Amino acid sequence: MREVFQQELREVQDGLVEIATLVAQAIEKATRAFNESNVSLAEEVIADDHLIDQRAQALDELAITILARQQPVARDLRIVVSALRISASLERMGDLATHISQLARYRFPDKVVPKSLRPTFIEMGALDVEIARKLVTLLENEDVELAKAIRNEDDKVDALHLSVFDKVLGETWKGQAVDTVDSTLASRYHERFADHAVAIAQKVDYLATGDWVPEPVG
Amino acid sequence: MREVFQQELREVQDGLVEIATLVAQAIEKATRAFNESNVSLAEEVIADDHLIDQRAQALDELAITILARQQPVARDLRIVVSALRISASLERMGDLATHISQLARYRFPDKVVPKSLRPTFIEMGALDVEIARKLVTLLENEDVELAKAIRNEDDKVDALHLSVFDKVLGETWKGQAVDTVDSTLASRYHERFADHAVAIAQKVDYLATGDWVPEPVG
Repeated sequence: MREVFQQELREVQDGLVEIATLVAQAIEKATRAFNESNVSLAEEVIADDHLIDQRAQALDELAITILARQQPVARDLRIVVSALRISASLERMGDLATHISQLARYRFPDKVVPKSLRPTFIEMGALDVEIARKLVTLLENEDVELAKAIRNEDDKVDALHLSVFDKVLGETWKGQAVDTVDSTLASRYHERFADHAVAIAQKVDYLATGDWVPEPVG
Repeated sequence: MREVFQQELREVQDGLVEIATLVAQAIEKATRAFNESNVSLAEEVIADDHLIDQRAQALDELAITILARQQPVARDLRIVVSALRISASLERMGDLATHISQLARYRFPDKVVPKSLRPTFIEMGALDVEIARKLVTLLENEDVELAKAIRNEDDKVDALHLSVFDKVLGETWKGQAVDTVDSTLASRYHERFADHAVAIAQKVDYLATGDWVPEPVG
């Protein structure tokens, strides 16, 4: 029985790593599609999002089955409960990658944001990709140092997000209303993506420490 | 033992109703603060958000304790697992009410959005308030009809959200970049608030039917 249970817990962890890998691929493609106006890449992300949704749902079902059949306690229980929260955040990160891709598709063949903001979005996108990759490794090995690194990168994303508003509301901004809307939404999506990664990192901390931390305000 | 358990399940349900009531009060104040440029009301919402966070966290801890001690199965297990998801959505709805209040506070004594958009935001705000109130009742009595009504109202919020973009991107739009940014963000916050209510309604459906539905794309 105990062996079956350990096997099922490994399946949960493997499932999370697998979904996080799909999310990392999605944000990589989405930010490339966004920055390079690559419409076919954007469509790929949009078309594949249901795979992330399906796997998140299957993982939830597995977690609930484990709770019912194995009735875990202590750390084992925390792993299963955290998995439910983590899968919800990963699913949402997939949605945000889709939203970024949708902006790229709407504006094609134009770029989504005016020239003056492109370096900022390239940097934000690279940070989101880096955060997503670290998340995969964090879910594999629960390295608390990686959780810290993700929080640091999230701080950088937040600073870039604020800098987008500085530019858009600055005197040199020459964008049309459509540029302002798209830059605002795109920046928000990039920022929320990183927030969810921080929420997941907190759940991994919880596995190590037992402190249940609510989702961060963001 | 069974009696203790039923008592604990009632505590979970009461806790959700209590948090939803706080969220309904928060969105009521936030939308009034937003539409009437009432800065003291806005500050009240911002200052009180930690109460929602605290109660959501306490409810999560209660749910985890129940899972560990009572090892529920079948419908009882579904109630506890759903409670964890619902508390996360309610906590997030509180954040969104805070974001709406922050916009009101930043722009005070000005109104956040230009005149041409005010009727739209008054309508969106009224729908969010109505949705939040229905959510309180839904969590009290699990009336599936209420879940449907929430979905209908969410459709109306989505339509208003799109109409904001039509106005902002239309030829008659005379707003500055700051108006465009604020209208975009405010509309997004109102729309996400309603989305979370739909996600909660789906979890309540799950209690009735056993179908675990992932968060909606939105």
